[in-house]
Amino acid sequence: MRILITGIAGFVGANLAATLLRRGKAVAGIDDLSRGAIRNLDPVRRHANFTFEVADLSDIDAYRRALGKLHAGNPVKEVWHLAASSDIPAGVRDPGVDLRDTFMTTFNTLALMKEFGIPVIAFASSSAVYGDLGERRLTEDAGPLLPISNYGAMKLASEAAISAAVESGLERAFLFRFPNVVGVPATHGVIFDLVRKLAANPEKLDVLGDGTQRKGYLHVEELVDAMLFIREHADQRLNYFNVGPDDEGATVRFIAEEVVRQVSPAARIAYGRGDKGWPGDVPRFAYSTSKLSALGWRPKMSSGQAISMAVKQIAEQEARH
Amino acid sequence: MRILITGIAGFVGANLAATLLRRGKAVAGIDDLSRGAIRNLDPVRRHANFTFEVADLSDIDAYRRALGKLHAGNPVKEVWHLAASSDIPAGVRDPGVDLRDTFMTTFNTLALMKEFGIPVIAFASSSAVYGDLGERRLTEDAGPLLPISNYGAMKLASEAAISAAVESGLERAFLFRFPNVVGVPATHGVIFDLVRKLAANPEKLDVLGDGTQRKGYLHVEELVDAMLFIREHADQRLNYFNVGPDDEGATVRFIAEEVVRQVSPAARIAYGRGDKGWPGDVPRFAYSTSKLSALGWRPKMSSGQAISMAVKQIAEQEARH
Repeated sequence: MRILITGIAGFVGANLAATLLRRGKAVAGIDDLSRGAIRNLDPVRRHANFTFEVADLSDIDAYRRALGKLHAGNPVKEVWHLAASSDIPAGVRDPGVDLRDTFMTTFNTLALMKEFGIPVIAFASSSAVYGDLGERRLTEDAGPLLPISNYGAMKLASEAAISAAVESGLERAFLFRFPNVVGVPATHGVIFDLVRKLAANPEKLDVLGDGTQRKGYLHVEELVDAMLFIREHADQRLNYFNVGPDDEGATVRFIAEEVVRQVSPAARIAYGRGDKGWPGDVPRFAYSTSKLSALGWRPKMSSGQAISMAVKQIAEQEARH
Repeated sequence: MRILITGIAGFVGANLAATLLRRGKAVAGIDDLSRGAIRNLDPVRRHANFTFEVADLSDIDAYRRALGKLHAGNPVKEVWHLAASSDIPAGVRDPGVDLRDTFMTTFNTLALMKEFGIPVIAFASSSAVYGDLGERRLTEDAGPLLPISNYGAMKLASEAAISAAVESGLERAFLFRFPNVVGVPATHGVIFDLVRKLAANPEKLDVLGDGTQRKGYLHVEELVDAMLFIREHADQRLNYFNVGPDDEGATVRFIAEEVVRQVSPAARIAYGRGDKGWPGDVPRFAYSTSKLSALGWRPKMSSGQAISMAVKQIAEQEARH
């Protein structure tokens, strides 16, 4: 059997593919290479158990052709659906971006799973489904779910469509609500942005917002480990888990200082105003991971440690390019 | 200023239009007449303050043309978005139905409100967004939101898209989570189905499920009154309310017996098995309307009274056709 990863050339997809192959699984991938990059697959492309097709998943006919090729011979038995727009501000400017890349890719995935008889989906959801619930402890059962970005809205829409599909025949589903995830190959995110800015101007680092935004950060290697742990141990038909660090998170100020320390220690940091980096940004939240702890998984790194490691890796990545 | 009602030729739309006109408002309507019927607008069509266009709201170009005509001269300042598929089983069979008719109509409404500068939306959401939370008390802040029908999923997706739109510029929004609504002009629903069945066979009434499903029922006249009350009194930018009766609801058995009593007293009732009428049906739930009570609105009728009145009205409606 083969496991299909959509968005495989993206940040999380590339890491998941490498881990699954290391664990002896056969991996098929689809990506439209619009945000992901083919070089992210360099570590896995020549693996005997790896196959890959380029297709736009929001175009169901293109998706069906690609899946048909990958399915032939060694059938796909499970889909890890990671493809989505990762550009939250772009979706705030134009809701069509997340409709197409974040929601319709999910809708088409479910439709084709039914056509091809694929029984299991694992889905990269997001803490953005919670919207801005202030200081409330965000357990998986928190409500109301009123997202403040189209990205969050279309992740929630995807969860809802998957939930309905489980009721009408899909065998099992796993929803992972990601926090901020850091590591390489980095394609976006606050560390990536700050490292690039500092490379362009080593004297001064401009930061969006006042630096007080506090969020949990998980390293991508831990994220992949947690998802595979949940896949193995959660036993409901529909399983939904917050995945994140079990600390209070780290501030943007901490990240900025860590980037400066590792990349250009003499640089001056200039903060903006307000506690939102952009419209649709959630300034802070208290993410509960007690459901995941109870299942038996805990991260090894704190948010701060994950950030420090990711700054180092991203700085090296950017120095190579 | 004009108020636009989408899905105006449907059950709730036709009632809302009549009430708004009675209260001195100018009303514009759009409907594709796929489920609604033009005869539902007979009571309002000749009113001086009423205008109407036929258009498929899932087709944004057709929708834009219709809205452009209605907007000209007397601008639309508020949209009551009621258009949706009302056929839950159809959406379970084919998720494309609710994608197109329940979600894309909302997505397009938001896009065109931005284009035309319309600042306020009122949206007919549904208790189906809650999925099946068992016996838990469903306040508006209940979670998780894991719908078990595509109808519920696409209503939740619509709420999410509206919530994100409020964050990025939409002035105000009102989300009404409907319970089962009864009354005339009836086009679907359990009473309508049972009255039609009994008209076809006055000896025997076959009921889906074992009759123990218990839900809250609100008469459409009370629903319209409650929505307009919320529109007037709720003061957040994003307002979300359960709208329903404040009792424990009524069983399908009660409805079946009431239909038999009023339509064909000698008929025998034959129940099916299980507590779900169809896949995607939520067997029972405890709907809290305390937020609405706290705002100052309470229904005059119980679920049972609403059903009795609706059975009478629907039997008369069907006798006329």
